[in-house]
Amino acid sequence: MLNQRAATLDAADPLAHLRERFVLPKGVTYLDGNSLGALPAAVPAAVDDAVHRQWGTDLIRSWNTNGWWEAPVRTGDAVGRLVGAAPGQIVVGDSTSVQLFNTLVAAVRLRPGRRLLLTDPDHFPTDQYIADSVGRLLGLEVRRVPAREAVTVLAAEGDQAAVAAYAPVDYRTGELYDMAAVTAAAHAAGALVHWDLCHAAGALPLQLDAIKADFAAGCGYKYLSGGPGAPAFAYVAHRHQPGFDHPVTGWHGHTAPFSMSGTYTPAPDVTRARIGTPPLLSLVALEAALTAFDGVAMEAVRAKSLSLTGFFQHCADQLLDGLGFTMATPRDAGRRGSQVALRHPEAFPLVAALAVRGVIGDMRAPDLLRFGFNALYLTHADVLHAVEQLRDIAATGAHRATELQERPTVT
Amino acid sequence: MLNQRAATLDAADPLAHLRERFVLPKGVTYLDGNSLGALPAAVPAAVDDAVHRQWGTDLIRSWNTNGWWEAPVRTGDAVGRLVGAAPGQIVVGDSTSVQLFNTLVAAVRLRPGRRLLLTDPDHFPTDQYIADSVGRLLGLEVRRVPAREAVTVLAAEGDQAAVAAYAPVDYRTGELYDMAAVTAAAHAAGALVHWDLCHAAGALPLQLDAIKADFAAGCGYKYLSGGPGAPAFAYVAHRHQPGFDHPVTGWHGHTAPFSMSGTYTPAPDVTRARIGTPPLLSLVALEAALTAFDGVAMEAVRAKSLSLTGFFQHCADQLLDGLGFTMATPRDAGRRGSQVALRHPEAFPLVAALAVRGVIGDMRAPDLLRFGFNALYLTHADVLHAVEQLRDIAATGAHRATELQERPTVT
Repeated sequence: MLNQRAATLDAADPLAHLRERFVLPKGVTYLDGNSLGALPAAVPAAVDDAVHRQWGTDLIRSWNTNGWWEAPVRTGDAVGRLVGAAPGQIVVGDSTSVQLFNTLVAAVRLRPGRRLLLTDPDHFPTDQYIADSVGRLLGLEVRRVPAREAVTVLAAEGDQAAVAAYAPVDYRTGELYDMAAVTAAAHAAGALVHWDLCHAAGALPLQLDAIKADFAAGCGYKYLSGGPGAPAFAYVAHRHQPGFDHPVTGWHGHTAPFSMSGTYTPAPDVTRARIGTPPLLSLVALEAALTAFDGVAMEAVRAKSLSLTGFFQHCADQLLDGLGFTMATPRDAGRRGSQVALRHPEAFPLVAALAVRGVIGDMRAPDLLRFGFNALYLTHADVLHAVEQLRDIAATGAHRATELQERPTVT
Repeated sequence: MLNQRAATLDAADPLAHLRERFVLPKGVTYLDGNSLGALPAAVPAAVDDAVHRQWGTDLIRSWNTNGWWEAPVRTGDAVGRLVGAAPGQIVVGDSTSVQLFNTLVAAVRLRPGRRLLLTDPDHFPTDQYIADSVGRLLGLEVRRVPAREAVTVLAAEGDQAAVAAYAPVDYRTGELYDMAAVTAAAHAAGALVHWDLCHAAGALPLQLDAIKADFAAGCGYKYLSGGPGAPAFAYVAHRHQPGFDHPVTGWHGHTAPFSMSGTYTPAPDVTRARIGTPPLLSLVALEAALTAFDGVAMEAVRAKSLSLTGFFQHCADQLLDGLGFTMATPRDAGRRGSQVALRHPEAFPLVAALAVRGVIGDMRAPDLLRFGFNALYLTHADVLHAVEQLRDIAATGAHRATELQERPTVT
């Protein structure tokens, strides 16, 4: 039954051809693309060219002749197409933590006098650490308000809020929040919004411009499949570009960088968000990786993603009943990102035992099994296979017999 | 005469064999390794492995099985050997601007109550922008005192100085300053020192521990030849590690990162200086690049570097006389880094015309021709060839006939 259903869904999948745009290792069912996306087929040749020809042969001249100087903005625009941002509002470079920090400081500074920074107690740890750091640097109180209460709190007592810093997708449970509603509530209170898009960019359609988002940042290595530690991106809405004021002021953000002036005069546009020389080998990989999205509508990605996650939930209902699992991810498609999390008291050995069988997911302490679904390269057959393996392990107790010393994987 | 001298020097060069550790394009004399180091021969295979096997096949498991998690500290220790830092004091990751910012804030915070931040008016622009940014964030006055006056100013009025932020090598003229003296003067005044090592690491012996440096940062892509935008490094002396307090608080610096706690509890050691996921493809390249220094004493690098720069100055004296050049770099070996700069009113077209002939240097407005010498892969014959070409161009006016639209290269 489930086999037939998977086959039917895969046969009707309009994105099935995209799997060929990735290099997937044999014998592996990869459900951890929400930590590190699989290798896009376009990447190796691009990196090889960057190493041998651009660096090795053209050397320093590559800044001019191989487009290195423009890469952060050019790649930013490519990300923009996937997140609903018109060109000229995104730069790529530096790590996610840095982009979060830089843009959050910039956002807070645009609301002087307001002493409250709202963030999510379920936000990814770095987001919370950065919010606390920014709050301390700029003298704001950081208040943790769950995403699902943010609209209410902003409406009731948002008049002192400078910025509401949230993510559209809970990184553990995959729960999806209403970006438009939170953004509108922040604006109604006179505050700005700051979005962490790590678990959303490339996974579902985003409309940064349409919902009037202010600042956002996100990583390149999850659903964008840009490679380990791929440079992150920063979004600054056009209307904030002439005035935003960020703290990591590198010379690439200067209005006339080659003047080598000792005084920082920021560029009037999004290039102000540039910092210094980006990690170009990693950036070249990301730019090549983004071509996997060529000709693909994010709405189609979303439709398939929901089909995959919905099918996973269906398979889990059918196959895991009575084995101690509970569903942590909403069943309502409108409240679900592109991952499914299950709770089980033996989450860690279960995930480890799955890995031994070639099914790669990850876990979050204490009890969460987390499976991410990249619609560009996964099939419904992959989904069924993963749940079947999980059932076999849980039913036979194979995870208890396995010596598993692996550290939890990196988000 | 000069030909013979070059041949004699090259024949006696104990580091001549190191040239084989680099891939140098035919027909190019590369004197811009102080902007972007040449490609080390060990890099392509390392990057290829990182792309295909580590990312493509092992995927997320590489954090455990391919040493990704430890890479920032492991590579930091490799840098440490070149800069006189015992293991456990350097991490690698993120860009130079970010490492400068993060460590400078940390340094200032260790001197609460002191309201003065000293930096160099001839510091690289980003250093000055970052100093101004940090001064504004933490409420310090930023005073620009030239490096050669820093000792005097610290002695006379250093009692309000929190930090002195300097570079041992002037990025334009190559002038070398006395790190030990500035460090001692800062400490005598109760201040800390912050060193930018971009133009020093890999170029000359540094003794960060011996001179009791406090904080330092430096880039990976100049004399370390780690590739375009290679991750930068941050040095935090052992004695400051239990207490330093930096602003870009990513989860990799947490004392228990996999606890995924919402509260930042910093690691007690140098791993506190980690931020988030580093750009691993670029980091792998840097780590492989550093093997070019295997078995090489920095004292030997320094000896050859001085021989190369001294020979350049000698050739310039012999060949460029009467052509409008003046020497911007000290002739005293003790006051010279690993580069030589000449002043000429037509610096830009001269550098551009050199490039057309395969001699790659760079320029700094308005009138500086800048040549960097990496002792690991350059010969005295290279040096002579470069000066001969420069003489031919200047003497014939070839640079005035050349259509050259190139942007100045990137430092």
